[in-house]
Amino acid sequence: MTGIAALLTDFGTADWYVGSMKGVMLGIDPTIRIVDITHGVPAGDILGGALALLSSYRYFPAGTVFVVVVDPGVGSERRGIVAAAGGYFFVGPDNGVLSPALARAEAPRAHAIENDRYTRPEVGATFHGRDVFAPVAAHLCSDPALERFGPRVDDPVGLSWPEPTETDGGIRGEIIHVDAFGNAITSIEAGRLGRFEPGEATVGCSSRGAIPLRDYYRQVGEGEPLALVGSSGLMEISVNRGNAARILNLARGDVVEVTGTRGPR
Amino acid sequence: MTGIAALLTDFGTADWYVGSMKGVMLGIDPTIRIVDITHGVPAGDILGGALALLSSYRYFPAGTVFVVVVDPGVGSERRGIVAAAGGYFFVGPDNGVLSPALARAEAPRAHAIENDRYTRPEVGATFHGRDVFAPVAAHLCSDPALERFGPRVDDPVGLSWPEPTETDGGIRGEIIHVDAFGNAITSIEAGRLGRFEPGEATVGCSSRGAIPLRDYYRQVGEGEPLALVGSSGLMEISVNRGNAARILNLARGDVVEVTGTRGPR
Amino acid sequence: MTGIAALLTDFGTADWYVGSMKGVMLGIDPTIRIVDITHGVPAGDILGGALALLSSYRYFPAGTVFVVVVDPGVGSERRGIVAAAGGYFFVGPDNGVLSPALARAEAPRAHAIENDRYTRPEVGATFHGRDVFAPVAAHLCSDPALERFGPRVDDPVGLSWPEPTETDGGIRGEIIHVDAFGNAITSIEAGRLGRFEPGEATVGCSSRGAIPLRDYYRQVGEGEPLALVGSSGLMEISVNRGNAARILNLARGDVVEVTGTRGPR
Repeated sequence: MTGIAALLTDFGTADWYVGSMKGVMLGIDPTIRIVDITHGVPAGDILGGALALLSSYRYFPAGTVFVVVVDPGVGSERRGIVAAAGGYFFVGPDNGVLSPALARAEAPRAHAIENDRYTRPEVGATFHGRDVFAPVAAHLCSDPALERFGPRVDDPVGLSWPEPTETDGGIRGEIIHVDAFGNAITSIEAGRLGRFEPGEATVGCSSRGAIPLRDYYRQVGEGEPLALVGSSGLMEISVNRGNAARILNLARGDVVEVTGTRGPR
Repeated sequence: MTGIAALLTDFGTADWYVGSMKGVMLGIDPTIRIVDITHGVPAGDILGGALALLSSYRYFPAGTVFVVVVDPGVGSERRGIVAAAGGYFFVGPDNGVLSPALARAEAPRAHAIENDRYTRPEVGATFHGRDVFAPVAAHLCSDPALERFGPRVDDPVGLSWPEPTETDGGIRGEIIHVDAFGNAITSIEAGRLGRFEPGEATVGCSSRGAIPLRDYYRQVGEGEPLALVGSSGLMEISVNRGNAARILNLARGDVVEVTGTRGPR
Repeated sequence: MTGIAALLTDFGTADWYVGSMKGVMLGIDPTIRIVDITHGVPAGDILGGALALLSSYRYFPAGTVFVVVVDPGVGSERRGIVAAAGGYFFVGPDNGVLSPALARAEAPRAHAIENDRYTRPEVGATFHGRDVFAPVAAHLCSDPALERFGPRVDDPVGLSWPEPTETDGGIRGEIIHVDAFGNAITSIEAGRLGRFEPGEATVGCSSRGAIPLRDYYRQVGEGEPLALVGSSGLMEISVNRGNAARILNLARGDVVEVTGTRGPR
């Protein structure tokens, strides 16, 4: 264990909710190093939370405990789970927000959170981040044994991930996130782009014309659009020194299609 | 002492102000663990800051030092104070922002900040968060003696807290905060709701009709409104998987009234 | 070395980018104390990033490593640099964002980041914050030797800083930042104001009339404008308990001019 807990929620930072979670964790173990990934996931956006986790967790040291609270079903019968995969630990609601990270990591296993020895004495109806997930994560920071929290879960809830599809002419995917710079991150992984002849592929996105697929921003002029592999290993549509989403009017859910000459690979 | 300092301000996070405070604190004691509660209190909103503190401080370990800077009167003659109550420590302007937390905790006592040995050598006219409260808090993290900062203060400024009132038919309060999810937190404490027959009370809020008082979101359909006890121990108006403030057009200051059949309690 | 790393970027906090940088740093050295200055610099705003650094760095303890990533030219041929000045360390793109801080600190020296031993094994095209600057900063936290990162740079890129000019009647500068409270920070340093008779100078800003230069907010009535020396050591235009930028319609780039009776100094 590293004693590092990384928080990822849809709580925003205008309220005291994230602070309360940190207080609970430090009350259990004041030596935990708490890191924020983001609290800016749109409220209740499970896919958005899953993408943020999937894009960031592997950059943390092995042993990190990820506390992921995007929990529109709090107060319903949905389970809470603790999980381990690929040397990392995960805590959160069993609603699919953890599933893409777990599915892509080695040897995932999950346990239900049932043992009230590890939750706060009073668990409210609205804030399991503070009353359940924060204390469980703090306990997990010092002892990785999952089975003490509750029984094994063999069927954690999966998330319907927007997989790209092969088309006659190329690959079709969609925009799954627009970041703060206006980069439109698509569902198309870097590995799928190797089939195209370098410099010969273009990306179409509804009526925005053919956008060239390149390797670096500098390969197009300032203010010009391009597609390239971004930092999440996914194809992004960007504008060199500009805000692509604003300039090209792109939004999550927009369909994108890569077409081009087949390369030697 | 725990060596934990929790910061709560109206500085926002777009500027470097919070970072400067942390730099000052770490310069005095690099081992302090600094936690942000929130910096999103609206500018100069003393009640908003007081609510955030009141809702979060008890979740931190005893010994935590809370640095609360909502300070519209900086550069006037308002005092700065250090205080202790309920095993916690507090630093901030003497303008009422600390008073609800102090009033509800055990054995509150406060001292004025007058000893310039514990402030920065040069105290500017506009940023006592950095020049006064941060260094005082850092010193407090390693030694809890309040008297060294200045003389005892027996009359700290109180805040006019919006207390609910008993009416013929029930309890009348008001919305005191709308959180990032659109939950409208009212001034009505959970303890006041026990007099109603479970499942028989409703909440009225101007022209929005009768909203049922329930225990869990799931007790109403998705997209439907309810009132319930939220994580601050106060009654909130919410919408199951929706943004109540937007859907019901709720805002801070709106009057709410709980009515219903009197229960056995 | 203090083991403190202070981050300053234009990444915002809605995405996972800052979290990924912290993960990388903790993977190299889990004992680093990471502090956020701000991630709210407007996208690509090199002057804004430089001002935030210049206004905050001296409040941190000597030895702090500042990781400053405002990097509109990522993926171009711009260099990355590590630098030391005035007892502090700096890491970032060589685009001028570090230059005002370096120019005002003692004995600045810079080295290029070329040794891939200190960067991530795979450096992507879009996110040198995570792949280059974060790991370099983490290594710098434990060993201050700059030369191991690459050759000495004698000509780091400078930033065109908006220096005030002396006019017949006084001093002319401009608004270089509007903070979250609506204070309009100008390019005019406190030191330049000493020539005026106290209480006799006024500040003109296009058609907003003569704003009195004072020392404290309380010297004007609530809701009234004033100019005073702010916490960055620069003259600010403010409104006592109000939002000056909104009330006076001020924006970055607006010209301001101080005029008044010459004092004895």
